[in-house]
Amino acid sequence: MSDIAANFKQVSAADIAYFVKTIGEQYVLTTDSQKDKYSHDETEDLRYMPEVVLLPADTAQISLLMSYCHKQHIPVSPRAAGTGLSANSLCIYGGVMLSIERLNRILDIDQNNLQVTVEPGVITEVLQNAVKEKGLFYPPDPSSKGSCYIGGNIACNSGGPRAVKYGVVKDWVLNLQVVLATGEVMWTGANVLKNSTGYNLTGLMIGSEGTLGIVTQIVLKLIPHPKFNIVMLAPFVSMEQAAAAVAATFRAGITPSCMEFMERDAIDWVCGWLGDVTIPIAPEVRANLLIELDGNDMDMLYRESERLYEVLMGYECGDILLADSDAQKTDLWRMRRNVANAVKTTSVTIEEDTVVPRYHLPQLLTSIKEIGKKYGFRSVCYGHAGDGNVHVRIIKDELPDDYWRNEVPKGVREIFERVVELGGTISGEHGIGWVQRRYMDIKFPDFQLQLMRDIKRVFDPHGILNPGKVF
Amino acid sequence: MSDIAANFKQVSAADIAYFVKTIGEQYVLTTDSQKDKYSHDETEDLRYMPEVVLLPADTAQISLLMSYCHKQHIPVSPRAAGTGLSANSLCIYGGVMLSIERLNRILDIDQNNLQVTVEPGVITEVLQNAVKEKGLFYPPDPSSKGSCYIGGNIACNSGGPRAVKYGVVKDWVLNLQVVLATGEVMWTGANVLKNSTGYNLTGLMIGSEGTLGIVTQIVLKLIPHPKFNIVMLAPFVSMEQAAAAVAATFRAGITPSCMEFMERDAIDWVCGWLGDVTIPIAPEVRANLLIELDGNDMDMLYRESERLYEVLMGYECGDILLADSDAQKTDLWRMRRNVANAVKTTSVTIEEDTVVPRYHLPQLLTSIKEIGKKYGFRSVCYGHAGDGNVHVRIIKDELPDDYWRNEVPKGVREIFERVVELGGTISGEHGIGWVQRRYMDIKFPDFQLQLMRDIKRVFDPHGILNPGKVF
Repeated sequence: MSDIAANFKQVSAADIAYFVKTIGEQYVLTTDSQKDKYSHDETEDLRYMPEVVLLPADTAQISLLMSYCHKQHIPVSPRAAGTGLSANSLCIYGGVMLSIERLNRILDIDQNNLQVTVEPGVITEVLQNAVKEKGLFYPPDPSSKGSCYIGGNIACNSGGPRAVKYGVVKDWVLNLQVVLATGEVMWTGANVLKNSTGYNLTGLMIGSEGTLGIVTQIVLKLIPHPKFNIVMLAPFVSMEQAAAAVAATFRAGITPSCMEFMERDAIDWVCGWLGDVTIPIAPEVRANLLIELDGNDMDMLYRESERLYEVLMGYECGDILLADSDAQKTDLWRMRRNVANAVKTTSVTIEEDTVVPRYHLPQLLTSIKEIGKKYGFRSVCYGHAGDGNVHVRIIKDELPDDYWRNEVPKGVREIFERVVELGGTISGEHGIGWVQRRYMDIKFPDFQLQLMRDIKRVFDPHGILNPGKVF
Repeated sequence: MSDIAANFKQVSAADIAYFVKTIGEQYVLTTDSQKDKYSHDETEDLRYMPEVVLLPADTAQISLLMSYCHKQHIPVSPRAAGTGLSANSLCIYGGVMLSIERLNRILDIDQNNLQVTVEPGVITEVLQNAVKEKGLFYPPDPSSKGSCYIGGNIACNSGGPRAVKYGVVKDWVLNLQVVLATGEVMWTGANVLKNSTGYNLTGLMIGSEGTLGIVTQIVLKLIPHPKFNIVMLAPFVSMEQAAAAVAATFRAGITPSCMEFMERDAIDWVCGWLGDVTIPIAPEVRANLLIELDGNDMDMLYRESERLYEVLMGYECGDILLADSDAQKTDLWRMRRNVANAVKTTSVTIEEDTVVPRYHLPQLLTSIKEIGKKYGFRSVCYGHAGDGNVHVRIIKDELPDDYWRNEVPKGVREIFERVVELGGTISGEHGIGWVQRRYMDIKFPDFQLQLMRDIKRVFDPHGILNPGKVF
């Protein structure tokens, strides 16, 4: 840590004066009370106070700020909405936090080409609603869609429940305007559906967590919004049966628009916490799948759901609850989306973002519980089973601080080792950020991590962009 | 050219001895008659003889060869099937041509996870047929699918007609085994559907045309094979009307599995050349769309085709030919796939691979013809209209060699300038290779090309991998 920090310059009064001159005094935050909310994100227990928080208005201002900070060796961490779960944007080395919250305009909804051009500070759900008004659909929907920014989604290559049918963020981005560490501004690609023109800089930027550049405009692909959907909750007597039913569904040629997994505890927890959602669940049920089918033809959807029932019945599925109103659909989704919030209120927790080939989910779930038993921690598992992506929320309960800090991570390491054994990886959609760096050696040999570091150096020769993240 | 060449060492007798020792004498080709077929590809008029052609058997041998050539500064051009249209694999600087033709095994069809692991020298159609036997589907289908290799498809991020519904190669690759220039071997990602674990090296490798590493194993995503399709040919009285109908189709919420464009000349040419395909085409027809719908429910497909008819009728579409047998479907596709072959037999030609946002196709087509008139060259336009991707085959006819070599490229430059003005780019699916490099400045500013060169240097410090390509 000190090695990297040795190259950085602290923010001085002269620097502040430059920032004020460049973007205006009210957009340069220097007091602790102003900066406090930028010192943490949704990752438990971590606080790093930036030296200064900057709120630039546009690409041109960001270019000037980056050019200056590059020359001055001042670290800059870009920040979207601060909903990250891996401390993706915290100012570990102090310096500047550059918030993109004022770049919050939807610039153009192109109904002829089915594209939208948007700034990174637009809330994902706001964007989705704006294009839906034109009959169009931007599918990726992280659980935090009501508060996260589209720019943060790009930084982490986010997914969400619909990824199982529609893909993740990288599958929807056509082109990015990026300010490089040096202040130069480039468009990574073109506004086209196919592109074989030089290296795929768009793809490289997505998921790079603000370490290679600051995204300032985004061109996304859209599709016409599907007209109908069916939502159901299917109960199973074991986690393994539920997970096996997932692989069987896709094998049968059925592609649900969502296929979410919740273990029993997750449902009990979230229903208790929400208070106003009551889902009748039989005592023997150990796991549930929340399944959505979507399309433009209701008859077709009914026929597909009948085929789906047949598949699920092969895995000791209990009585399926078919949502019979929009209100019930909303309740089922509120339940799913609030699992993490419910668990978090009861204890300090950490969430791991495991992903394996979907058929190996049962093995992964079994291993997670075994490892939990060995290390003495409880966990609640839920997530995007259709993609083999399961979030493991590990609960501190009464574990001593010291044990939580030093022993539990050994259990996490064992979980990730198992994930990699099963052909998976250590983050499906949250990114690595600051807190998961220590596990990167499980997935990548040294020379490959060095290759990534060398790529970063090409983009950011002084290492000022979001230092301490990813590796 | 000489600057780069100055760093390279010529292949010596000692080098040949090392190659023979490493991979066996019969796999080291040194005579002109052995090497001849490796001196050209499907790009017109170009021949570059390699100093030696190597046919290694596996990853381990390729690793040894690369490690050696890296130390010796011997250039290495990887070659798949040699169907490239931009001289993507030719040995511009001599040195080694490393053919992956012996890495031609399908290693594992994983029916539980819907994945296939394959070596790069498998013919794309062979792969498609092998997974189809298990009821599975790998959609990307370049026109050369009967002869091209999957490894070459990855090098160029190929597309093909089905990309319009199913995406291009990059949308199907989960993980790549790559031998780096130094001989080190890495897996770029994991065998999972979602991945936010460090930089997207998989995406960076795809479309890098063998300049960053040699792909030696490939993990692809599969889906269940759709059960039915409908194929139709729709005639239009103008190219502009046909192109406008394309954008309207997608806007109406219809996603054909293929939506191909052929101007009148292309059809006349290919029918004449094939001899055994007769498509009745009215004299006033100037352009045709070849459209395929696919799915698992025949009733649904009929209903969708009725909705499609309605859309097309809004653009003065003539009588639609609906293929009434598999034989007729095959004929229609043979016609489409052989346009380039038909045109090539009549004259020297070059093919440009333009792509724009699909609604701008009419403007692009008009500009292409205007520029052709200005420079006095004929062209035949056809391709993947649903993606806005149009191939422009420019015909030399009786143009003097000197004019062809020096003046026609100025017209091509004007076409590409127009493409970029319209929000497009200079290659949709062929790649840049050797012959399109000179146009890269139209799309990218100098600093961005330098950024790409610097990325290459990270992967290939001595610049030995496929030198002279891309930039």
